[in-house]
Amino acid sequence: MTDPVGGLRSCLVVGTGLIGTSIALALRRRDVIVHLTDRDPVAVRRAADLGAGDPAPPPGQLDLAVVAVSPSATADVAVGLLTGNVAATVIDTAGVKAGVLHDVRREMGRATHFVGTHPMAGRERSGPGAARADLFDGRPWVIVESDAEADSVRRARALVELCGGIAVTMDADAHDAAVALVSHVPQVAATLVAARLAEGPDDALTLTGQGLRDVTRVAASDPDLWIDVLAANADPVARVLTELRTDVDAAIAALHELAEDPEWGRTSLRELLVRGNAGRARLPGKHGAPPTSYAVVPVVLADRPGELARLFADAGHAGVNIEDVRIEHSPGQAVGLVELSVAPPVAGRLVEALVALGWVVHG
Amino acid sequence: MTDPVGGLRSCLVVGTGLIGTSIALALRRRDVIVHLTDRDPVAVRRAADLGAGDPAPPPGQLDLAVVAVSPSATADVAVGLLTGNVAATVIDTAGVKAGVLHDVRREMGRATHFVGTHPMAGRERSGPGAARADLFDGRPWVIVESDAEADSVRRARALVELCGGIAVTMDADAHDAAVALVSHVPQVAATLVAARLAEGPDDALTLTGQGLRDVTRVAASDPDLWIDVLAANADPVARVLTELRTDVDAAIAALHELAEDPEWGRTSLRELLVRGNAGRARLPGKHGAPPTSYAVVPVVLADRPGELARLFADAGHAGVNIEDVRIEHSPGQAVGLVELSVAPPVAGRLVEALVALGWVVHG
Repeated sequence: MTDPVGGLRSCLVVGTGLIGTSIALALRRRDVIVHLTDRDPVAVRRAADLGAGDPAPPPGQLDLAVVAVSPSATADVAVGLLTGNVAATVIDTAGVKAGVLHDVRREMGRATHFVGTHPMAGRERSGPGAARADLFDGRPWVIVESDAEADSVRRARALVELCGGIAVTMDADAHDAAVALVSHVPQVAATLVAARLAEGPDDALTLTGQGLRDVTRVAASDPDLWIDVLAANADPVARVLTELRTDVDAAIAALHELAEDPEWGRTSLRELLVRGNAGRARLPGKHGAPPTSYAVVPVVLADRPGELARLFADAGHAGVNIEDVRIEHSPGQAVGLVELSVAPPVAGRLVEALVALGWVVHG
Repeated sequence: MTDPVGGLRSCLVVGTGLIGTSIALALRRRDVIVHLTDRDPVAVRRAADLGAGDPAPPPGQLDLAVVAVSPSATADVAVGLLTGNVAATVIDTAGVKAGVLHDVRREMGRATHFVGTHPMAGRERSGPGAARADLFDGRPWVIVESDAEADSVRRARALVELCGGIAVTMDADAHDAAVALVSHVPQVAATLVAARLAEGPDDALTLTGQGLRDVTRVAASDPDLWIDVLAANADPVARVLTELRTDVDAAIAALHELAEDPEWGRTSLRELLVRGNAGRARLPGKHGAPPTSYAVVPVVLADRPGELARLFADAGHAGVNIEDVRIEHSPGQAVGLVELSVAPPVAGRLVEALVALGWVVHG
């Protein structure tokens, strides 16, 4: 038998929601012994039924305990596990890091057996039923720099590796500032736009297009979950939101100025729009490639069963890997447009193959 | 031979960009005589080559002239056409309506032969090469209420019908307020979030997920195009943006208040998030159905050619119509998750069929 990765033979998962159960499933895939606990007996039963682990209390000290509960309960649960010597190392998975580390240190002095982590994965659904063993495959998983002993850091890294994640080491404050920027403020911005729609006239809503749908998609998220996240990361979020407000003020001023000094107003708006272009261009795409690196092949198809199947079969026969798909939505539209994103070198081949087979390809 | 729709036999399209060329292609599909003109001879040549119409000057007065130039040039071009009696009726297609109508009336007195319109369709690419005859199929097309004579309104409605659009009658101010709400402010909000990313540290960007990609997608749009749109609709956009700023201020205040009065801070954040939920829920989905009406079937698949084809073929054999597709992106991920949106009554059948064929289906 080979040595277990990072000496990780046994693990207690505390909190069998989406994240905890997914970690447990990923560990079971690699034959790690997993014990499960949750304050909700139904959730722990369901996770056990899914093959995530054993709901019985562990017989003795384990190698690792993973705290996967709400951000506000995380530090207390971690301190309880550390005090009880339940595992050689305790890690947490909360989405905000500085507060947890601070609270654990306050209770424990130095937190040598504690490592803060944050797997950058999630779904729009929650609970053990939404869990999947591959949730973390290829996803970044932040490991927070701290005064933890080397063995504990090694166990945390082993967990990330066993779950298929990619370990990224960061300072707690840098992490919190980063997620404020790339996750929490975008969530608030989507909510701000969606909130404007709550009172608009009905006929305005009939003019909606895909742009608005994309901008507001995450505004459908669970408010209780997000209050916890925003509360745990209040200062960094407020900081980015305050910078954003400066740009809102400038945009409003520029719009008002257009009547008086069109040149200045347009220059100011242009500066903001160009900055938006630049920021958007920094986003990594699939496999880390920039999103602009794909060629988009738009294909017209009828909205009936089998058309997409036929299209993908034809694309598959051309040996082309489809990197992304977008179906354009229009109320009452009988004919749809499917945009296939592919690597630029194969786009010509795909277009030729589809046209030869009778597809209407645009662009 | 049947009578032409609304007596529309001949049309001049002024401006052979995406919108003008698409209108011309749609009219040619229905055998309307189309003449084309553009200040750029290359663009008009390209549109003619695509079969959009005749680049020669019209031999006499036509039934309709369609102005499809930039918002800032629209009123001048329309006045020129009206003054020259080039067509019995002149319509425009600019995305902002009150200003154009005001400018045309100022020059012409009553604008009895002029009708303002706005087709709610577009693409992220522009120019005649991106045009498609089906661009307007099933899309709302606003016709502005004005003092136009009945024959001119009838011709405008005939154009919408010939292009496959759905005529929606609105007051110019109501239209401009509506597009500020559902299009222009969402564009600015996406830009505001993206602009924050222009200066963030590199490692923050590695933590990016699908949410940020969706929120910022439209921030990649052409600044020059958007400056024109925002300038033409400055007051309504500034109004909605000012309302949005009130919510930004409240969010920042709530985040700061969390340290002093957590209860008040959380209540205030919750109110905003719940309002965002409510606004988002008002968006029409495909075919006008609310977006929540689809069942989502998540399927795991390997990132290699042919997998999507096989999946869609298998779904097609089950006789299920896929309404939407989302492929989850993750940097470096070898295994992807494809989410198929289907009508709830057929979701169970789809899951059964896919599982029977060996697909890993979640949820």
